[in-house]
Amino acid sequence: MKLDIIPVKWSDEGVLMLDQRLLPTEEKWLTLRTYNEVAVGIKDMVVRGAPAIGVSAAYGVALAAKTFVGTDITDLEDEIEFASDVIGKTRPTAVNLFWAIDRMKRTFLAAKDAGKSVIEIKQILIDESKAIHDEDIEAQRLIAKFGGELLNDNDSVLTHCNAGALATGGVWGTALGVIRGAVDQGKNVTVYADETRPYLQGARLTAWELMQDDIPVTLITDNMSGHVMKRGDIHAVVVGSDRIAANGDVANKIGTYMVAVLAKRHGIPFYVAAPLSTVDMNCPTGDDIPIEERDRTEVTHVKDIQLAPEGVGITNYAFDVTPNDLVTAIITEKGVARAPYVESLKAQFES
Amino acid sequence: MKLDIIPVKWSDEGVLMLDQRLLPTEEKWLTLRTYNEVAVGIKDMVVRGAPAIGVSAAYGVALAAKTFVGTDITDLEDEIEFASDVIGKTRPTAVNLFWAIDRMKRTFLAAKDAGKSVIEIKQILIDESKAIHDEDIEAQRLIAKFGGELLNDNDSVLTHCNAGALATGGVWGTALGVIRGAVDQGKNVTVYADETRPYLQGARLTAWELMQDDIPVTLITDNMSGHVMKRGDIHAVVVGSDRIAANGDVANKIGTYMVAVLAKRHGIPFYVAAPLSTVDMNCPTGDDIPIEERDRTEVTHVKDIQLAPEGVGITNYAFDVTPNDLVTAIITEKGVARAPYVESLKAQFES
Repeated sequence: MKLDIIPVKWSDEGVLMLDQRLLPTEEKWLTLRTYNEVAVGIKDMVVRGAPAIGVSAAYGVALAAKTFVGTDITDLEDEIEFASDVIGKTRPTAVNLFWAIDRMKRTFLAAKDAGKSVIEIKQILIDESKAIHDEDIEAQRLIAKFGGELLNDNDSVLTHCNAGALATGGVWGTALGVIRGAVDQGKNVTVYADETRPYLQGARLTAWELMQDDIPVTLITDNMSGHVMKRGDIHAVVVGSDRIAANGDVANKIGTYMVAVLAKRHGIPFYVAAPLSTVDMNCPTGDDIPIEERDRTEVTHVKDIQLAPEGVGITNYAFDVTPNDLVTAIITEKGVARAPYVESLKAQFES
Repeated sequence: MKLDIIPVKWSDEGVLMLDQRLLPTEEKWLTLRTYNEVAVGIKDMVVRGAPAIGVSAAYGVALAAKTFVGTDITDLEDEIEFASDVIGKTRPTAVNLFWAIDRMKRTFLAAKDAGKSVIEIKQILIDESKAIHDEDIEAQRLIAKFGGELLNDNDSVLTHCNAGALATGGVWGTALGVIRGAVDQGKNVTVYADETRPYLQGARLTAWELMQDDIPVTLITDNMSGHVMKRGDIHAVVVGSDRIAANGDVANKIGTYMVAVLAKRHGIPFYVAAPLSTVDMNCPTGDDIPIEERDRTEVTHVKDIQLAPEGVGITNYAFDVTPNDLVTAIITEKGVARAPYVESLKAQFES
């Protein structure tokens, strides 16, 4: 394993993002010089995946501070509020977005209360965004360690969407972190990757990532996972999450729920890997998680190729919610939480 | 409803096939002048869908007889045997293919035994292939009638793949026949269509067909059906089949099994619509049904657009098997069969 994929980086020129829309056929980096460009990057899915969105949002707020040209701390506060609003309106489901923005705002307020200057606060916010990024990578390393221990040698693991290094601050990933963790522990693990329509994160990103790290991967269409389970070819399912409710209900990429129901039918463990920044203790259940609906053209077209008749009705839910009774365990940087999640997740926050 | 879609036709010039690979953006008819061209048309999915494959195979055998240039009945028999072999090797799962070939061969032998001449036999085989086509359309009309009675006014129905007029001899279709039957009976029915990767029969064909007949249709990706069921938006599932075992296990387009498991979880009836020519009483269970695997490029590419990394591992199972305990009813031209299917299907054959 190379463990060298970091999809978003801070630089003196601005925020660098690997344009995930172009993978796997092109590796192109964008330099985003304003918080507005970062917001557009998140909305247009240059970067995606809840932890990666969180890191990017933090960098966006830091960029708003850095590019602020005034000298009045109240004006800076307004600018940060405004930038946070813009960035906060890009994607509704991933709670890491709001978590990162809140943390940046709290850092600003603490610095302001401590009497720091505008120049000092700019650096404090840049440092905080980098800390969020570093902590995310460290959280993944621990998720990889704890999760890797749940897999057995020669396991064949199904994953849905991309919850890899590309979906996070980088290096390990969450679901793919668990797989990398097992490999790092000397286990032989092979992967089935759902292609994940309509945006094809599995085909484009998960397959690419795993091939970069020489982990054997077989790509299947989303409607094939049930058949592959029925054949006995899957020993565990590992997915990421965009938001986990306090009761352990898991919002994740559309189709995760179907995989979870099928895993239950076949007695296959269904693991969710996510940092605690993805757990929303203010959301009692999955019913309270907003589900983003995206543009119809994601379903009707692949690039300029038309797949469906002109004018056909479309719904394009980007996420679904898997109820906690289908979840075998939730793996965070604090360890492995099991049902009842309302207690185990709370205990992880308090530990 | 126009009820005017007939995807395969006999003509003096040869077999006419609507090229379903080009739908929905282009409506082009091919004229296939030899049985070899018909075999290629089936294999390359110019036409697809079990009943349509059966009708096409019958026409292919008739074409082999028609284009036979000799005068010796033994040579004609060899030619028919050879053509049947070629046509029989195109697609392994749809039993209608073998059913139609067997019926044509039996018709030949009966005519030969009755002392018919080569010229007479040519016409007998052409007539038999047309009879197979006519009977298929009549079977669908009855499936539409019986199945339509199972749906309620204002039902929202999920279907997977295309089991419409395009998948059959034409006019009604099997699964879409049930929907058309309900509409014909004055009911208001709306449809959710799974896009059905990798070949996109739902997006390209089912959406197109239903729009031709002004039946409201909403297209979703295959991984969305569980979420839509969970929202309470689906009242019934209706699918076709490529082969039904004697015990009621149902082979159908890959992904059908997942839909069936989800329907069961949500207490939604799961109906299978197919003519008796799809029921294989020589197949005791679904385990005995061969599952076709198709080319990797169906998964890795949409036309010339590459979706996945060069060299990624692929499996491309074209079908799966839904066990009979997930099947609420099987609708054939003889009526509505319910569990235990080993008895109810047998009774339909004997009725």
